[in-house]
Amino acid sequence: MSWAYTPPVDDILFYLEHCTGLFGDEAEGRIDRDLAHAILTEAGRYAAEVLVPLNASLDRNGARHDGNGVITGPGHKAAFDKFVEDGWVGLNLSEEWGGQGLPSALYAAALEFWHTGSLGFAMGNLLTVGAAETIEAHGSEALKQSYLPRLASGEWTATMALTEPAAGSDLGVVKVKATPLEDGSYAVSGTKIFISYGDHDLTGNIVHLVLARLPDAPEGSRGLSLFLVPKSVPENSGLTPNNVKCVGIEKKVGLHASPTCVMRFGEGGDSRGWLIGQPHRGLMAMFTMMNNARMAVATQGVGASEWAYQKSLEFAKERKQGKGTGPLAESERGIIAHPDVQNMLLTMRALACAGRCIILELGNAIDQAGKGDSSAQARADLLTPIAKAFCTDSGIQSGCLGIQVHGGMGVVEETGIAQVWRDARVTTIHEGTNGIQALDFVGRKLAILPEEEVQGLIRGYWDVAKGLIQSENDAVARAGRQLTDAVAALERSQIKIAEYRLANRGLASQAVATAALRQFSLVAGCAYLGKATLAATGQTAPHHRRFRTDLCFFANDLLSEVFGLERVIAEGEGILANLDENLLLDPGVATDRVASLL
Amino acid sequence: MSWAYTPPVDDILFYLEHCTGLFGDEAEGRIDRDLAHAILTEAGRYAAEVLVPLNASLDRNGARHDGNGVITGPGHKAAFDKFVEDGWVGLNLSEEWGGQGLPSALYAAALEFWHTGSLGFAMGNLLTVGAAETIEAHGSEALKQSYLPRLASGEWTATMALTEPAAGSDLGVVKVKATPLEDGSYAVSGTKIFISYGDHDLTGNIVHLVLARLPDAPEGSRGLSLFLVPKSVPENSGLTPNNVKCVGIEKKVGLHASPTCVMRFGEGGDSRGWLIGQPHRGLMAMFTMMNNARMAVATQGVGASEWAYQKSLEFAKERKQGKGTGPLAESERGIIAHPDVQNMLLTMRALACAGRCIILELGNAIDQAGKGDSSAQARADLLTPIAKAFCTDSGIQSGCLGIQVHGGMGVVEETGIAQVWRDARVTTIHEGTNGIQALDFVGRKLAILPEEEVQGLIRGYWDVAKGLIQSENDAVARAGRQLTDAVAALERSQIKIAEYRLANRGLASQAVATAALRQFSLVAGCAYLGKATLAATGQTAPHHRRFRTDLCFFANDLLSEVFGLERVIAEGEGILANLDENLLLDPGVATDRVASLL
Repeated sequence: MSWAYTPPVDDILFYLEHCTGLFGDEAEGRIDRDLAHAILTEAGRYAAEVLVPLNASLDRNGARHDGNGVITGPGHKAAFDKFVEDGWVGLNLSEEWGGQGLPSALYAAALEFWHTGSLGFAMGNLLTVGAAETIEAHGSEALKQSYLPRLASGEWTATMALTEPAAGSDLGVVKVKATPLEDGSYAVSGTKIFISYGDHDLTGNIVHLVLARLPDAPEGSRGLSLFLVPKSVPENSGLTPNNVKCVGIEKKVGLHASPTCVMRFGEGGDSRGWLIGQPHRGLMAMFTMMNNARMAVATQGVGASEWAYQKSLEFAKERKQGKGTGPLAESERGIIAHPDVQNMLLTMRALACAGRCIILELGNAIDQAGKGDSSAQARADLLTPIAKAFCTDSGIQSGCLGIQVHGGMGVVEETGIAQVWRDARVTTIHEGTNGIQALDFVGRKLAILPEEEVQGLIRGYWDVAKGLIQSENDAVARAGRQLTDAVAALERSQIKIAEYRLANRGLASQAVATAALRQFSLVAGCAYLGKATLAATGQTAPHHRRFRTDLCFFANDLLSEVFGLERVIAEGEGILANLDENLLLDPGVATDRVASLL
Repeated sequence: MSWAYTPPVDDILFYLEHCTGLFGDEAEGRIDRDLAHAILTEAGRYAAEVLVPLNASLDRNGARHDGNGVITGPGHKAAFDKFVEDGWVGLNLSEEWGGQGLPSALYAAALEFWHTGSLGFAMGNLLTVGAAETIEAHGSEALKQSYLPRLASGEWTATMALTEPAAGSDLGVVKVKATPLEDGSYAVSGTKIFISYGDHDLTGNIVHLVLARLPDAPEGSRGLSLFLVPKSVPENSGLTPNNVKCVGIEKKVGLHASPTCVMRFGEGGDSRGWLIGQPHRGLMAMFTMMNNARMAVATQGVGASEWAYQKSLEFAKERKQGKGTGPLAESERGIIAHPDVQNMLLTMRALACAGRCIILELGNAIDQAGKGDSSAQARADLLTPIAKAFCTDSGIQSGCLGIQVHGGMGVVEETGIAQVWRDARVTTIHEGTNGIQALDFVGRKLAILPEEEVQGLIRGYWDVAKGLIQSENDAVARAGRQLTDAVAALERSQIKIAEYRLANRGLASQAVATAALRQFSLVAGCAYLGKATLAATGQTAPHHRRFRTDLCFFANDLLSEVFGLERVIAEGEGILANLDENLLLDPGVATDRVASLL
């Protein structure tokens, strides 16, 4: 079975034009609307025509390890070559190094399309781009000259090599070593795991950015340095193999196109690496890369939600069971006539659209921040964990709902909807688990950013709510009232969270962190849908009406979660304050400790 | 990797003893506590020792079709033979036919263990039991004599053959035909799909209960009759092949041990079938079977939640990342020291425990109803969709959370947690999708059952809340207040739902059906945890304390969803009242219709 994919180009152009003000005079740092239209149309075409038809086969016949290295699935290399040929690799990279220098928001939009088309395929480029940005920001001139043009052109790819068997979320315990060599380079040795695209047969070389520890490094995360370690070293007008080896790949629940590699450095000879940035400051350099990568991962979630929606919509129109109820009721119409199915479809669509708006706001903030706008930097800092966690949670939820709409056919792999669900599963984990995002949001962003920046964001949501309330459209006005209630709940919760912080109640802060991030995200997503709805007042094109419908559905059905979260946040530590380790024991295991709850 | 499974025998025995009053004098229809203890211990041992070690391999090497029929995976038959030998097949079937005649609640408890051990394996027996119950309730004496002893003993297995390519949730359009033959049997012909265990190599015969249409049948669901169609007909002291053929099996996202078959009847010769019950009354007979099967499917969800919890708990104790916060904080302890991880673990456990309590209440109601108690029948009717939907939603959610606790290792199949998630996915779909459960709950149960029965159930929840509030334990008293708020919200929502019904607002009723079922389920689950907590007042064994912790966590963190649902229910039709079909169009598709929302 196959379905046509329609990239939501109009929605994105509308939002960029009317809500983020991206288009305009190039001299003012804006970009031309027609150019953006052409780029998004072509990026979407590549997703729909090249990736969508390939995606199921890359799931069935994914990357494999043949004993020497990784062989990608049939069709993978041809699609990659076309991606390179079309010039997509360097979309947002500097023109100085051969990129196209386009804004982050536009890059994010294209990423969404590609992730919809094939998450496992598009995953690879995200790492190359992240690595290139890091090299540009922190690398020496020589490294830039040697590597950036080849990364931006797609001649080579790159990875982020952070994780080790004992070091996942806690990078402070990284053990890979880097020993200085006489020529100024370093011998990097040890094992990294979970390295996406750590090896493959797509390009002639692969550049690894490796977190490692110098001999004199202090313990913990302040002792980490970042090294560029290529699979082969470019020298003497050739490539010298560098003892970098992929010794195996993981068998994963999804994302079979993307090889998840165990990498060995420095076995059978030195793996030469070059320092990026200052010694012991590697984590800071890596975070530059990870923050942008978090936006990219957010687009994976939106891509999954949008695709789950479109596939399920098509199925729901075709599949006939019963006649339904309400304005769409008709026995020949398919299960789309059932209110329960409509709720599921609208949930997927509203989650996709709200997430997309959050990402476009984030992309815009990143670009403004790049021009030195500190308030925009604060917005980018706040919206990064919001986008990452909300969009990826939504992607899994939408995949799950998509299966539900498909009924029995949903669990049959042939329909492809189960792949959406499986492929999306890792997105709440990689680039910082969503639990880490929540700690970052509460512990670093809310706690450290100037208070007026957070309040400024919330004031913007109030303004949207006020605007909506004044709408002549009853449904929109009702959504405005619902948003008003939700922003009020958000403010009350923010006061609670500030109380916990001021009272040094670390346990309370951490216990409610996920709830706090989720609550803020729901209000933000709804407010941005409202912003688009206000901008579309009086307009009647399909995408104008979709914003309106998505706003009304989101405000009515999804935003209500905010009020339950308010209760959870208000309870603070809750039961965790009294949590005895025995209360988390295996069932049936006896204990002689007295429970603190008794 | 492997983990030990500890069946929650103590929790179940406690609930059955103190909350459902199952144990006591056999003369009064009760059963002996020691007997129940022995049965559950052995049922759990079978799950832990036979199924758990087999489960991953049945996932990797599941059932396959060799061109002639289905071959189960290596080890499947040996485990099945042991299951039969131990006498587990007929646990709740009538003693008259070779079963053990044990109560439904005890059967459900054992089912949970087996579903934890291997959902794909245990799935098979559920169908045999359901078919045997249907034959006993509606079959002729001759059919009973021929088939029931062999089903109860495990010599043969059985299926429910309802679904056809065009007939899933809407069985009214079933097309398989039954034509009378001269000997009083019928020639059954046509194709059924999604038939679990429709073919296999475990036993010498398979008995299919097939929904089909007689030549003079009226259209729709009132024209369906139920037939017993064996793979081979027992006659002349032998088995005569009956032209029943499995022509293929589905490639599914999970449950690989369980063959999902496409079955052809009457090809290459007659497939003889025998009428069960009255002509054209087949659906009624089938529903007898489906209601009990829904309780069984609920245990699949609880099994998944419990297993996700136990596996994740083990992982969280071993895996070290950071040092956490709060009473369990310690760098050597593992990620269990992190509040976010504790929240995830407690969510899985509280969902499992609340679901289990709902199922034990349901099993008890079914047994009481069987003795002619009409109030118990009403409780069973209400609790069936609650148990089915809540427990299966929880199973998927817990599988998803379990992966999250495992971090990167969660998406690696080796750890087994992804299998829990994948295997659980179909449970919200089979035996009536959860959307169908919601329509059944609102449209048939709440609408048709005597009002005082629904109110009686809710009054029971009030009583629990009042009892908890009076607890000397602060955390328990707080849970009581939280439950009180939630029951009040439930009552307000019930009034709304009654309003929609009385005003014939079918769209509003259907639009909020899923929210209504979910809200009732959350309150019921919390109230039953509270009931157990009250019964355990002053007790200090691990399972007593677990009930208390689960109650407090559920009331604090999970019950809050009830208040958001109240808002959704109060909005009625919401946006669906104005839903124009164009509002669900593909992105980018133009339309010339005027949107009703404008």
